[in-house]
Amino acid sequence: MAKKLFDYQLDEAVDGFFLLKDSEVRIAKNGKKFLAINFQDTSGEISGKFWDASDQDVEHFQPGKVVHLKGKRENYQGNPQIKIQQMRLTQPGEPQDVQQFVEHAPMNTAAMEEELNQFVFEITEPNWNRIVRHLLAHFHDAFFSYPAAKKNHHAFAGGLAFHTLSILRLAKSVADEYPHVNRPLLYAGAILHDMGKTIEMSGPVSTTYTLAGNLVGHIVLIDEQIVKACQQLKIDDQAESVLILRHMILAHHGLMEYGSPVRPHVMEAEILHELDELDASIQMMQTSINHAEPGSFTERIFAMDGRNFYRPTHDDTKGELPSE
Amino acid sequence: MAKKLFDYQLDEAVDGFFLLKDSEVRIAKNGKKFLAINFQDTSGEISGKFWDASDQDVEHFQPGKVVHLKGKRENYQGNPQIKIQQMRLTQPGEPQDVQQFVEHAPMNTAAMEEELNQFVFEITEPNWNRIVRHLLAHFHDAFFSYPAAKKNHHAFAGGLAFHTLSILRLAKSVADEYPHVNRPLLYAGAILHDMGKTIEMSGPVSTTYTLAGNLVGHIVLIDEQIVKACQQLKIDDQAESVLILRHMILAHHGLMEYGSPVRPHVMEAEILHELDELDASIQMMQTSINHAEPGSFTERIFAMDGRNFYRPTHDDTKGELPSE
Amino acid sequence: MAKKLFDYQLDEAVDGFFLLKDSEVRIAKNGKKFLAINFQDTSGEISGKFWDASDQDVEHFQPGKVVHLKGKRENYQGNPQIKIQQMRLTQPGEPQDVQQFVEHAPMNTAAMEEELNQFVFEITEPNWNRIVRHLLAHFHDAFFSYPAAKKNHHAFAGGLAFHTLSILRLAKSVADEYPHVNRPLLYAGAILHDMGKTIEMSGPVSTTYTLAGNLVGHIVLIDEQIVKACQQLKIDDQAESVLILRHMILAHHGLMEYGSPVRPHVMEAEILHELDELDASIQMMQTSINHAEPGSFTERIFAMDGRNFYRPTHDDTKGELPSE
Amino acid sequence: MAKKLFDYQLDEAVDGFFLLKDSEVRIAKNGKKFLAINFQDTSGEISGKFWDASDQDVEHFQPGKVVHLKGKRENYQGNPQIKIQQMRLTQPGEPQDVQQFVEHAPMNTAAMEEELNQFVFEITEPNWNRIVRHLLAHFHDAFFSYPAAKKNHHAFAGGLAFHTLSILRLAKSVADEYPHVNRPLLYAGAILHDMGKTIEMSGPVSTTYTLAGNLVGHIVLIDEQIVKACQQLKIDDQAESVLILRHMILAHHGLMEYGSPVRPHVMEAEILHELDELDASIQMMQTSINHAEPGSFTERIFAMDGRNFYRPTHDDTKGELPSE
Amino acid sequence: MAKKLFDYQLDEAVDGFFLLKDSEVRIAKNGKKFLAINFQDTSGEISGKFWDASDQDVEHFQPGKVVHLKGKRENYQGNPQIKIQQMRLTQPGEPQDVQQFVEHAPMNTAAMEEELNQFVFEITEPNWNRIVRHLLAHFHDAFFSYPAAKKNHHAFAGGLAFHTLSILRLAKSVADEYPHVNRPLLYAGAILHDMGKTIEMSGPVSTTYTLAGNLVGHIVLIDEQIVKACQQLKIDDQAESVLILRHMILAHHGLMEYGSPVRPHVMEAEILHELDELDASIQMMQTSINHAEPGSFTERIFAMDGRNFYRPTHDDTKGELPSE
Amino acid sequence: MAKKLFDYQLDEAVDGFFLLKDSEVRIAKNGKKFLAINFQDTSGEISGKFWDASDQDVEHFQPGKVVHLKGKRENYQGNPQIKIQQMRLTQPGEPQDVQQFVEHAPMNTAAMEEELNQFVFEITEPNWNRIVRHLLAHFHDAFFSYPAAKKNHHAFAGGLAFHTLSILRLAKSVADEYPHVNRPLLYAGAILHDMGKTIEMSGPVSTTYTLAGNLVGHIVLIDEQIVKACQQLKIDDQAESVLILRHMILAHHGLMEYGSPVRPHVMEAEILHELDELDASIQMMQTSINHAEPGSFTERIFAMDGRNFYRPTHDDTKGELPSE
Repeated sequence: MAKKLFDYQLDEAVDGFFLLKDSEVRIAKNGKKFLAINFQDTSGEISGKFWDASDQDVEHFQPGKVVHLKGKRENYQGNPQIKIQQMRLTQPGEPQDVQQFVEHAPMNTAAMEEELNQFVFEITEPNWNRIVRHLLAHFHDAFFSYPAAKKNHHAFAGGLAFHTLSILRLAKSVADEYPHVNRPLLYAGAILHDMGKTIEMSGPVSTTYTLAGNLVGHIVLIDEQIVKACQQLKIDDQAESVLILRHMILAHHGLMEYGSPVRPHVMEAEILHELDELDASIQMMQTSINHAEPGSFTERIFAMDGRNFYRPTHDDTKGELPSE
Repeated sequence: MAKKLFDYQLDEAVDGFFLLKDSEVRIAKNGKKFLAINFQDTSGEISGKFWDASDQDVEHFQPGKVVHLKGKRENYQGNPQIKIQQMRLTQPGEPQDVQQFVEHAPMNTAAMEEELNQFVFEITEPNWNRIVRHLLAHFHDAFFSYPAAKKNHHAFAGGLAFHTLSILRLAKSVADEYPHVNRPLLYAGAILHDMGKTIEMSGPVSTTYTLAGNLVGHIVLIDEQIVKACQQLKIDDQAESVLILRHMILAHHGLMEYGSPVRPHVMEAEILHELDELDASIQMMQTSINHAEPGSFTERIFAMDGRNFYRPTHDDTKGELPSE
Repeated sequence: MAKKLFDYQLDEAVDGFFLLKDSEVRIAKNGKKFLAINFQDTSGEISGKFWDASDQDVEHFQPGKVVHLKGKRENYQGNPQIKIQQMRLTQPGEPQDVQQFVEHAPMNTAAMEEELNQFVFEITEPNWNRIVRHLLAHFHDAFFSYPAAKKNHHAFAGGLAFHTLSILRLAKSVADEYPHVNRPLLYAGAILHDMGKTIEMSGPVSTTYTLAGNLVGHIVLIDEQIVKACQQLKIDDQAESVLILRHMILAHHGLMEYGSPVRPHVMEAEILHELDELDASIQMMQTSINHAEPGSFTERIFAMDGRNFYRPTHDDTKGELPSE
Repeated sequence: MAKKLFDYQLDEAVDGFFLLKDSEVRIAKNGKKFLAINFQDTSGEISGKFWDASDQDVEHFQPGKVVHLKGKRENYQGNPQIKIQQMRLTQPGEPQDVQQFVEHAPMNTAAMEEELNQFVFEITEPNWNRIVRHLLAHFHDAFFSYPAAKKNHHAFAGGLAFHTLSILRLAKSVADEYPHVNRPLLYAGAILHDMGKTIEMSGPVSTTYTLAGNLVGHIVLIDEQIVKACQQLKIDDQAESVLILRHMILAHHGLMEYGSPVRPHVMEAEILHELDELDASIQMMQTSINHAEPGSFTERIFAMDGRNFYRPTHDDTKGELPSE
Repeated sequence: MAKKLFDYQLDEAVDGFFLLKDSEVRIAKNGKKFLAINFQDTSGEISGKFWDASDQDVEHFQPGKVVHLKGKRENYQGNPQIKIQQMRLTQPGEPQDVQQFVEHAPMNTAAMEEELNQFVFEITEPNWNRIVRHLLAHFHDAFFSYPAAKKNHHAFAGGLAFHTLSILRLAKSVADEYPHVNRPLLYAGAILHDMGKTIEMSGPVSTTYTLAGNLVGHIVLIDEQIVKACQQLKIDDQAESVLILRHMILAHHGLMEYGSPVRPHVMEAEILHELDELDASIQMMQTSINHAEPGSFTERIFAMDGRNFYRPTHDDTKGELPSE
Repeated sequence: MAKKLFDYQLDEAVDGFFLLKDSEVRIAKNGKKFLAINFQDTSGEISGKFWDASDQDVEHFQPGKVVHLKGKRENYQGNPQIKIQQMRLTQPGEPQDVQQFVEHAPMNTAAMEEELNQFVFEITEPNWNRIVRHLLAHFHDAFFSYPAAKKNHHAFAGGLAFHTLSILRLAKSVADEYPHVNRPLLYAGAILHDMGKTIEMSGPVSTTYTLAGNLVGHIVLIDEQIVKACQQLKIDDQAESVLILRHMILAHHGLMEYGSPVRPHVMEAEILHELDELDASIQMMQTSINHAEPGSFTERIFAMDGRNFYRPTHDDTKGELPSE
């Protein structure tokens, strides 16, 4: 089976098929053009430079193309990079399906949808149940294919739905442990909290922010969808239950300086905010630790205040119990 | 003509009709009930204590009642207060109209409406013009009667419309001076920016915050009204012009920690934010300075970082020009 | 069965036995002494004032005494208080056991200990297991009887162990959901993270801070106990496993400005910090909501940035599912 | 007529005369010298690199020289740049006047001075009038030729006087709208507020900070000039009117962390501060928007918290009014 | 010898002569006037209330009067207070000199002046020497009699000069230890740094802030005096030595948010700032510790971020050296 | 005598022996390897690039090697650098002792130890004296050879002990001037405050942080050593004197956000913190000023909030005294 990008050791010869995630034309010190490339497969991304690019090269090697690459795995200022020796577009009979090269959620759509429906079933408050089902239907395709963020956490296809599911599972644990928590409210809020990202972002690949995303933001974008859903479902949008549901979404960034127009003032809104942070931070730390050697620190994670994390020498510490 | 509350000097005998703005039952150190009262007329508010209140007194002297008061103007820890000697409800033939005792905007509704319409006329972009007219009609009565805030600036009947007009006049000056400014956008944003306060607050008198106000907030509340208006007027709510108009309202608090889910990223949104602050701060400073003696400092203004302001000895400094 | 403090309605006559939690001598405006008292039973605390206290009264009504009280449930500036009509010490045959009047964790010590031991059993790394068992044995009595904090969250007898258990249950859910998490490390850290409070605080009742608590603080106090334990157990205190365990405790406040000398740089340390916050905030919100009426806001919670929380009109929202 | 720098499209051949604003000798990776140049004309600045510079080239191509340039307009990491093909100094008969290549205020000095004098005429308080006229005379030439800042806003010749005039016009609108505002004070403060920049900065071109600018700063530098002016004009520098005028200047940065030794405690000082910000921010936004394409965002503006601004697709939105 | 205020124990009868530092008329709950008094002698201040004050009492017991007092030393909410039993103005033959009742610097003026002159002698740079001597002469009386602050540190007669001397002694130690430090500059800056307080404050007793203090502040007030001094002494006020000296004063608060218009950018300015903080904080801590019992914490010190300080059980820890 | 690195002027030919402090392999734009080098001798460090490095070059020119270098002193973007013309390892008979090329404290170990012992002698409290002597003996070699920090202040061999001595000298001045200061406590705290750096850092050269340093930090690391010392010396580690000594160390960073788990709550702890800052800042400023030309500003010092400092034209300002 073909080696992945991160399977190659330092100084090892690289020979395989990879996706051009980014490919940007720049001008070298000698005045000639070169391409600054990010190669991608499901193991991650590594950069490389294609020197002395002809106009034809520039035209061929566009982002989204799959290429056959020969080169060498090197290191540049502590980061891995590929020294390109030979590169060409794939030919008929060779791998060309972009989907094989991008990371996906670790579950497929059908499985995620089935698990999600179990949670929807437990939203026993009628207004919340109807609004959630209405919006899930409306944004179905985007919700199950988009990433949860352009970069940072869950930045892979299906990441939005997977992040939502992870929070729902944590929410279930919390509702089981703290009986006063309003389970239907927590589930409804969790399902909707990031759904506005399907409007804020351009799509599942080569994701950029839309004008609505830049000028309005995903929090308010989904809030307005709830109001519209109420109109279509003939639900009074000033009903207490609707105001509380909207508050769940509006407050879920926790602090106003992070974009929530109100801070959490309902218990379940505070819990949703904390679970959102918990899942996002575990996913970010885990991703970074996967790329670090045992006994070393990860790269600094921008979205966690620039902290780096230590990967212990022995991840699995299941020794024998002492018979004290 | 009858003396106003702030016309009485220290130690002067007070005799007149006043509104009970607040009247709260408390228990004195000797175990008896007393009423902590705020008397109000159009000159402002002064507190007083009604000792040894009987159950009948408590029942009679409710907030919103007009009373005849005899007492003395005293000072308590630097603040004016009334020592109550005699107090009774007004009788037939005496002043009873609450409206005569509360502060109003310095223009009447008709005049404000007429001036506002001149600005609406200059909103030449069709979507903006239709949305503004639709919402002005929808919230007409509240818009022209509500205060602009529960306390702080423009906290008087009609204050919301008057604050809006003041900003529009400043906006006109700015648009006249800086020709690249989009005048229709600035006017449309100015008219709508605080209209959500008609949903956020309970009414023009004894104002409290509604549940929607507490859980959603006036910025998002009016944003949703724009979206609803688009649906009724068959305007595409994803049109660039609509997104920009919504951005004007969403961003007008300037900083996210002040409740704007996005910071201003359109020139006119930044200008609207700065003019909003300018008008609010002038109104707050002027109100405080009116209650200070020449040559002294005002009380500290909470909403201006607790600063106090010096009232110069000579307000009007129009001396003779030197013939240097 | 006897009524609890919070069972009495406004203006209802109070007649029962209560604990004097605090009782402070002060001087009234008339120059006489009075006692500022906090009455306590398992439903909470309410204040009251005992006027014209004689020297004998001062001597009798000490904190920690149980009294028979007759009076009236009143309101003072929005807070409940008791108007004292008659008060005397209890007599033989009447309730005198202080333990009946203080709040306890909702589980008894034996049950908590048993559940905790299940978690200890899963700490399969030998160093961690031995250190945890050693310190649990050493601080056994205090650990199961102290509150988790002087005020704020879990401020009741047994609160420290109960808070620890709640975090362990959340930790189990997280370890079940995220397989890369080092379960033994997370459990060991959770059990030890607040154990230093048994040194920081004076005891389970009338809790104050010790000099060691004020000058060193509970985070460093338990860290030093780990080092001492290593010496007694002949464990190398520079071993990676020990450094990581100590880091779990040192970093658990998350931010240095909250007293952690280092921020979390190990994944499980970050998770422990977030779970600690989650459990503490749920407990604080739940306690406040219990004292608020449905459809109203709680008092502001100091330790949650002064936020208040809305208690919805219907806590239990288990309506019928719509058959859409 | 000759094309300006910003008239050239991407990949278009460049051929014209430009000013060398900056020209810095550096060493390339191949060990040879090159010049890092900023070309300037009245449309703005664009960078370029002159490779393999001989010692003679270094000597010739000094900042402040006008050159004839042949090259190509390219893009480097999102920013425009010039690929230099041929470059030589101008010869007799070709453009050599530096003034033709630098940006100027949109009004000439005479017009600015005349308009300013109208405002001075309305400063009816004698002390303020005399101080303002004295300092205007003293700093006349620098005041009308300096920029308002080294970079950021109004960074062009005459920018200081033009910025002052813009604020005066806004001040007039405010004084017209709010009758309690002390117009002479606001005008006097506006005229003097940034005059210290004539001491803080080295001159109108190739501007650097003087030692006095670095160690004392323009706010205190002009304050001391007011004190000196008082001595020469025999005005008591402890008179209330003088203290208030000095306060206007000292407080005009609004916040102490921005360099004001006192925050505004006089109403007109607060207004001056807000108008100063308003004019500066409009000028910065307008400059950036001029360089952005319709339908795109500007570059981030450092002095506005790094925000970028959206230039709408249609700047001029003067459609037909709907006949609703 | 007469007992001092702080010599009396709790519940001890008080009988002696004291200064009325403050005496404010207030209205009691029963409607009668009372005086809220601060008694002062050289041991400190204690408050007391004079009930049922007649108009004559109000007239007699003015701040600044010396009285004969009989009463009792009590405690009110943790703070000492005097229960007044009898109070009258002093009669001929009894103590009446206010100076005997206020705290003074621990050195007399002559001694301070002599020591200061030694430091002036070492200011060998001619400009600095002449400016310092000129201003010392100009502000001589105020400089040696004013406090260093209205409250907080060195708030006693002569405190300004004494604080200056303490810094000079520290400065000498630093200059002795770090030979590169410019000793004359450090001494000149230390002597002038707070001299503006003689203009900022109203006088040595019953100190208030002047209008110049409020609107300009002591940092800029002394800066202008240096400029004026230069004019009188025919020193070029743009000379580097003068700019650096002015920078010493302008920057001595260290941070702009504490009122320095520039931060320290000269080594000696940074040192002066740190020594100023060091002396002020030691004086504040020492004053608080003097009023605390051994083995307890002081009251919280507002100007030190509200921290309290522990007074160890044994202040003097000069035990025997162990013969290990 | 041989020229030092900083003795060479711009464009002067360099010829001498230097230490390779850092030597990092990188890949040039042309795909070939080069070495990014920092040359060091006792005058400081200067960078240079060794182009077209062969595999043998990479192997030879390791950090820690002494080389003979021929090249030229150039400038790159304002910083000095060496253009390498010829470079080879030293041969027998040429300088090879690394110690001759690294900076040292300006005193030798013996002199520092002797002076330190004088201070230890004055620690008259027995517990403190024994703990200090015990730990000084335990960490003797590292304490006298380590730097005080990896970079920033006192980053040279012996810097830790020298920084400690400088603080002790300042502490002596303070204790002499303020008689209430507890001298033995201040000395004991000063000696121990940074001793944990011997565990936090890897060694005196090529210093990195240890795992204990990263996960625990030097403040807690030395605190634990005090506890261990108590066990060995049979001192009660809960004695007040021990708690206070530990507090001195724990609090010495002053603010919790700088890594102190508690802020100073003992007077001597606050003083130690301020003296630590004072010595560190003087050392950093002095080092930077030594590399700046008279009449210019230093580079920005990261650890002093990025400030730069002005080096006056005349450092030594010992002019003639004016005979005024």
